[in-house]
Amino acid sequence: MTDKKYVYFFSEGDKSMKDILGGKGANLAEMTKLGIPVPQGFTITAESCDYFSKNGKWPEGLEKQIKDNVAKLEETMKKKLGDKENPLLVSVRSGAAVSMPGMMDTVLNLGMNDETVLAVAKKTGNERFAWDSYRRFIQMFGDVDMGVEHKFFEEVLEKAKENKGVQFDTGLDAGDLKKVVEEYKKVVKKHAVKDFPQEPFEQLRLSINAVFKSWNNSRAVTYRKLNSITGLLGTAVNVQAMVFGNMGETSGTGVCFSRDPSTGKNEFYGEYLMNAQGEDVVAGIRTPQPIAELAKGMPEQYKELVAIRDKLEKHYKDMQDMEFTIQEGKLFMLQTRNGKRTAHAAVKISVDMVKEGLLDEKTAIIRVPPEHLDQLLHKRLDEVAKKKYDVLAKGLPASPGAVVGKVVFNADDAVAMAEKKEKVILVRTETSPEDIKGMNAAEGILTARGGMTSHAAVVARGMGKACVAGCSDIKVHEEKKEFKVKDAIVKEGEFITLDGSRGEVFKGQIPLVDPELSGDFGILMEWADKHRTLKVRTNADTPADAKKAREFGAEGIGLCRTEHMFFEGDRIKAVREMILSEDLEGRKKALAKILPMQREDFEGLFTEMKGLPVTIRLLDPPLHEFLPHEEEDIKELSKEMKVDFEKLKSKVEELHEFNPMLGHRGCRLGIIFPEITEMQTRAIFEAAVQCANKGVDVEPEVMVPLVGHVKELALQKEVIVRVADEVMKESGKDIKYTVGTMIEVPRAALTADEIAKEAEFFSFGTNDLTQMGLGLSRDDAGKFLPSYVDMGIYAKDPFQAIDQDGVGSLMKIAIKHGRSVKEKLKCGICGEHGGEPSSVEFCHKIGLNYVSCSPFRVPIARLAAAHAAIKQGK
Amino acid sequence: MTDKKYVYFFSEGDKSMKDILGGKGANLAEMTKLGIPVPQGFTITAESCDYFSKNGKWPEGLEKQIKDNVAKLEETMKKKLGDKENPLLVSVRSGAAVSMPGMMDTVLNLGMNDETVLAVAKKTGNERFAWDSYRRFIQMFGDVDMGVEHKFFEEVLEKAKENKGVQFDTGLDAGDLKKVVEEYKKVVKKHAVKDFPQEPFEQLRLSINAVFKSWNNSRAVTYRKLNSITGLLGTAVNVQAMVFGNMGETSGTGVCFSRDPSTGKNEFYGEYLMNAQGEDVVAGIRTPQPIAELAKGMPEQYKELVAIRDKLEKHYKDMQDMEFTIQEGKLFMLQTRNGKRTAHAAVKISVDMVKEGLLDEKTAIIRVPPEHLDQLLHKRLDEVAKKKYDVLAKGLPASPGAVVGKVVFNADDAVAMAEKKEKVILVRTETSPEDIKGMNAAEGILTARGGMTSHAAVVARGMGKACVAGCSDIKVHEEKKEFKVKDAIVKEGEFITLDGSRGEVFKGQIPLVDPELSGDFGILMEWADKHRTLKVRTNADTPADAKKAREFGAEGIGLCRTEHMFFEGDRIKAVREMILSEDLEGRKKALAKILPMQREDFEGLFTEMKGLPVTIRLLDPPLHEFLPHEEEDIKELSKEMKVDFEKLKSKVEELHEFNPMLGHRGCRLGIIFPEITEMQTRAIFEAAVQCANKGVDVEPEVMVPLVGHVKELALQKEVIVRVADEVMKESGKDIKYTVGTMIEVPRAALTADEIAKEAEFFSFGTNDLTQMGLGLSRDDAGKFLPSYVDMGIYAKDPFQAIDQDGVGSLMKIAIKHGRSVKEKLKCGICGEHGGEPSSVEFCHKIGLNYVSCSPFRVPIARLAAAHAAIKQGK
Repeated sequence: MTDKKYVYFFSEGDKSMKDILGGKGANLAEMTKLGIPVPQGFTITAESCDYFSKNGKWPEGLEKQIKDNVAKLEETMKKKLGDKENPLLVSVRSGAAVSMPGMMDTVLNLGMNDETVLAVAKKTGNERFAWDSYRRFIQMFGDVDMGVEHKFFEEVLEKAKENKGVQFDTGLDAGDLKKVVEEYKKVVKKHAVKDFPQEPFEQLRLSINAVFKSWNNSRAVTYRKLNSITGLLGTAVNVQAMVFGNMGETSGTGVCFSRDPSTGKNEFYGEYLMNAQGEDVVAGIRTPQPIAELAKGMPEQYKELVAIRDKLEKHYKDMQDMEFTIQEGKLFMLQTRNGKRTAHAAVKISVDMVKEGLLDEKTAIIRVPPEHLDQLLHKRLDEVAKKKYDVLAKGLPASPGAVVGKVVFNADDAVAMAEKKEKVILVRTETSPEDIKGMNAAEGILTARGGMTSHAAVVARGMGKACVAGCSDIKVHEEKKEFKVKDAIVKEGEFITLDGSRGEVFKGQIPLVDPELSGDFGILMEWADKHRTLKVRTNADTPADAKKAREFGAEGIGLCRTEHMFFEGDRIKAVREMILSEDLEGRKKALAKILPMQREDFEGLFTEMKGLPVTIRLLDPPLHEFLPHEEEDIKELSKEMKVDFEKLKSKVEELHEFNPMLGHRGCRLGIIFPEITEMQTRAIFEAAVQCANKGVDVEPEVMVPLVGHVKELALQKEVIVRVADEVMKESGKDIKYTVGTMIEVPRAALTADEIAKEAEFFSFGTNDLTQMGLGLSRDDAGKFLPSYVDMGIYAKDPFQAIDQDGVGSLMKIAIKHGRSVKEKLKCGICGEHGGEPSSVEFCHKIGLNYVSCSPFRVPIARLAAAHAAIKQGK
Repeated sequence: MTDKKYVYFFSEGDKSMKDILGGKGANLAEMTKLGIPVPQGFTITAESCDYFSKNGKWPEGLEKQIKDNVAKLEETMKKKLGDKENPLLVSVRSGAAVSMPGMMDTVLNLGMNDETVLAVAKKTGNERFAWDSYRRFIQMFGDVDMGVEHKFFEEVLEKAKENKGVQFDTGLDAGDLKKVVEEYKKVVKKHAVKDFPQEPFEQLRLSINAVFKSWNNSRAVTYRKLNSITGLLGTAVNVQAMVFGNMGETSGTGVCFSRDPSTGKNEFYGEYLMNAQGEDVVAGIRTPQPIAELAKGMPEQYKELVAIRDKLEKHYKDMQDMEFTIQEGKLFMLQTRNGKRTAHAAVKISVDMVKEGLLDEKTAIIRVPPEHLDQLLHKRLDEVAKKKYDVLAKGLPASPGAVVGKVVFNADDAVAMAEKKEKVILVRTETSPEDIKGMNAAEGILTARGGMTSHAAVVARGMGKACVAGCSDIKVHEEKKEFKVKDAIVKEGEFITLDGSRGEVFKGQIPLVDPELSGDFGILMEWADKHRTLKVRTNADTPADAKKAREFGAEGIGLCRTEHMFFEGDRIKAVREMILSEDLEGRKKALAKILPMQREDFEGLFTEMKGLPVTIRLLDPPLHEFLPHEEEDIKELSKEMKVDFEKLKSKVEELHEFNPMLGHRGCRLGIIFPEITEMQTRAIFEAAVQCANKGVDVEPEVMVPLVGHVKELALQKEVIVRVADEVMKESGKDIKYTVGTMIEVPRAALTADEIAKEAEFFSFGTNDLTQMGLGLSRDDAGKFLPSYVDMGIYAKDPFQAIDQDGVGSLMKIAIKHGRSVKEKLKCGICGEHGGEPSSVEFCHKIGLNYVSCSPFRVPIARLAAAHAAIKQGK
């Protein structure tokens, strides 16, 4: 009656037909088309599922098409569904156009019944295997197709094991499993109130319907909602012949890679087991053999496999990860996909493939995920040695690199031990600015609290120190100088190893491997620079950072945080003196002490960055960050400063804020205390003049933080321009400079047209813009944000990857409004997102001029910017 | 050469010519036009100023026009500039189209010189007056026109007083002042390096130029920038004949009102002094006489004044505040303006004027500033008695009304003393939710910290208690049970008086006056309701609040904060039990205890609000707000709850947040702990069913707080709909309800089209939207926000009046996007701004359906809504 095609034999499809065949079906078809031996089968289209969802029945013609395809499959496989001698067993699997892992149902070993089980037993010579397969089939089928709860089957199995006195399923023999099958059938009868169907096509019909129905189960619906998967018709259904690698000594199974996934070398790589199933390779009970051994044992099949490897790699133009099974001497490919690889391998494979003429530069660039470069730039754990260690605790991978050191619990101890040339790891519940010297002295930092942009994380990344943050598994007792993980206690002086790239903590010392910025890496980065248009700057507060960043390819400083300079050495004293001053005179006196030190800082930076722009942000944090908060520390400071304890304490209390993030900070400091802005401006321009006198080319960009209203910027700009003029007049030297603003308060983005009238550049502070735009404190979000990401509310942590719909929309508004006033307004980003690949891509797309990130992320940003340009060019 | 008119004699202008004559010039012209006697003069246009600013000289023709007008003025006044017998003295004043008080310069007594001073002395018979006037002129002229610093003149004057051994200027006689004049002339010669000009037209020329120049002095430029005054040409210059009320017993001066500004009664009201100048009335050295006395002393002038009063009131159709001077029997009006009045007077005058046919209803409504109604709804200080008291300290007028009570320093003492029928005022550094029972027991609340929307302020307004918040003058020592204001100490049990409408604190007991919701008030509100379109709801958490609000005209509840219910009595125990539970079971057990209590709360609210909508917001604050924070309190609670102290303390620490405003609160609680949402939903719907069974018409609107992403709302809505369905199924009763969301996170506003797909209504939480949009913590902003308002960065405190450019733009985006998805989407506001007139007007303009505010602000919002509708109708 209808001509509509609902079923495609694998040979009838190809990889372009994902919409109707689903991802899995389309790929199986593609392999078939290439002439690769895959266990044959057919795919029922997503349209059939759509029809079934709407009408509760199959469309006309579907049954016939399925039956025809079953017949074709039987012919191909030379087996028959339900045959008593040579039965065909099939799998029934869902597969939509977009992967929804684990959301829908699967049935394996379909075709098993009281008769075929005997045939399988006979054929395989493995009675246990046959009954176990039958048992598994009933259990899966009963659960998926007949609605019998899993637990009823488990009860039977538990009882059987109890009776036999064994702990694992493997302890049951064929006889036991046969009894289990009998019991299973009773369970089905009791709970489904009908018999387990013996007729294979009935089994198939029910399984197909179950897969169709699973498209609309609540898990799947929620998954699609949370992952914003819309516009799909339903799931396709794949019916595929089962193959077994455990049918005797001419059978086997293995996993292989077309190149070495660790080193990237162009060598066939993999391992296999004879007379085994896929699970056996994974389970690790038997030790698999290197793939090269197969050449000796089954030379013909090995040759075939190598040929397939070559064909697939050429076809997909990428390193392939393949699964194969040999059933009674016949090779079947079960899967091929682009293989996962280490960063080293990714770079080498990409560069090699260009040399081999397989790829062009652009494709080679796209093949290396920018975030993987992190692995190349830091020391890492020796992967072989690592296997001997258990992970002690897991936290956030806050700053990459692997380090080994003795545990210390406060900054002073860290400094003291570091002076004795001990390698230490600073462990704190959370860090505060007072810990900076300790962080600097330590190899790495471990904190129990705080997110990816917590103080510890930000500072560690800036310093290039490894950091595991928000490691809620550990309880830190700073006084006792120990931390606990469940019952384990780690005391001061004991060794731990941190893997900041993975967020893992180990007890003991794991050997480390040095980073190798190999020739291939250099070649790839050169290509990336050629293809990108977005500039990449760095966030750097010290000449050392700046130097590092230049080595990594930074094209200027996008953010110099001047407050970090306030914490060092004697400066903090002068800063505190300023804070405690009751009047303007007192503050000016204290600021005068800081001036020469700041000037020196800027001179260092300018010199290191000569010829490149340097953006300097005026003082940002609330003043209470410069004072101690604990009674003890206040007491000590009062002695040190010879200030009355009560007076000091009351100042600390007076400065206390309920929500410091939204408090008296940023330009609000400079507006209430213009003398601070005056001092910083003077330091910047005096340094610039000194450099200019030495022939160092400087171009300071003075950046006002936390502007929400154009009048704030206007008031601060007035001070900056006035003092800059003064310094230039005094020195007789003209310095080219600009004054701009952070866009980090939502109001600033919304009123960017007003702000652009005063600003010569915009720099998006996406950390704060995220905090304010989303109403999320980065230091507190750890309590719920991971769950939010798990639930799919946010696809990624918005502090790691820009929330494009929310924060991104503020950025777009700001750029549009800002450039409506100043067409060429320079816009950059200096938030932590500036080194995150998807964010860099977004920045490119919305027309930013540059991104700025911590030195170690500069290469990542360069590569991500190239990705963005190449993708947009397409 | 040029025909352009640069100078207007007062009789040539009128009030419509502000743009070129400035505000002052236009009004003087208007009075002249009405035939009211004003000291005559002329106005030099703002265009002349513009020409002068650009060219540094007068435009052609200006000099001649000035001279012509001087001649005309001399003729009118029968005096001549520089005349040795009857000299004309004039004032030279700036006056732009927009008032810029104190920003520009003024010169008085121009025309004084060595000769005219003698004539004035002779004419007035008051030699001292003449020399003092001359002295003042030189000083003002020297400073303004010749750039001689004020301090040089002050030195001379100081020395003269020292020599004479007197403290005040008044101690110097004519002879002394004559010597001062000589010295002043020397000062001018020395510092300006030229002589003080004796020639009157030269004096005039210099003064006009000085006023022109003052348009661009830095104070004025900054003022215009900060107040967004743009598009003006410059300032006009008013040259006006001086009149003196101190020229003998037929001279005098006074201030009068066309109706009584305190009561609003239609009675001529005012006071005057014979032989005196304006300053004498203000200085209070002599006691002025009631205006009625003038009828006896100078019946003719009195009659003329009464006639002018009638004429001006009819002309301006408003109560007038007038200043007059009688010089040698001749009455001059110096100023008329709409008079300031009490709220009582405003209402009475408006209603009376409608009765008198002077005004229509709409104009009458517009005449009463909505914010003034506050005064009518609360007790207030007896203004007469108040005069005997000095203000002890000043803070923010956080919640209106005046109260007297004994000082207490903690909630328990407040409750204990209130139980003994003592009236108490709770004084705290800041309040927290634990203080609620104490706030409830107290008459009023005084805090040293926190802004207009701090906890104390919000709760006090909700309770209708007087509150002075952020009173930084006081230092509270809770342990010592005292507070300090500079050196004064106020101890527990001492009486203080708070004026929450003015933010003032007094020591002692000032008598109070009861509120009178007079008949006129009722009439005016009726008119307001007739003309407004915006609905007015209330924020109410208790049946008592709801009842109060209905009396004040609320049309539903726009915000019921359920957390306030969590603090009461035994509930806090169950809440704490829930927080301390380690698992879901434990939490559910504790929540089951809260359920019946919440149900009861909602029943009470629904019953009180029957027939009207009730919006219930799910739990909003972070959980740590329900636990104590001080070591002491934690100890006590651990005993009370029989929970290990360390465990409790570590829970408190675990829940600690750096920025609680941006922390684990709002729907983030319900998403991580859906059982809380389940319990609250069940309580709402069980209450609704109970009410429905009793025939009470209910329409709950369930509101999800702090939504930033549509998925948050979708997840919470799923729980709400599921539980509502359950309850309705169980009860067999159908309840009409809606589920909506707060729009209080910028991201929610930006993605309102997505959110509107799930939301049935929007309610703007403009407190949080302001905090996040502007990056301002309401509890911390006290440190800089007042300065920001002073500097004009924000015209008003954005927590009091919606920041229309920033927060308002988010609101507009949200409404536009939301209604693009649901055309009729109901939008309201439940932030504190809902009762602030300029914000209510804004809400009307952008198309909100309703505003919601605390009960005592409901009448204000009703009137403001009428204002908005009337203004927009124009």
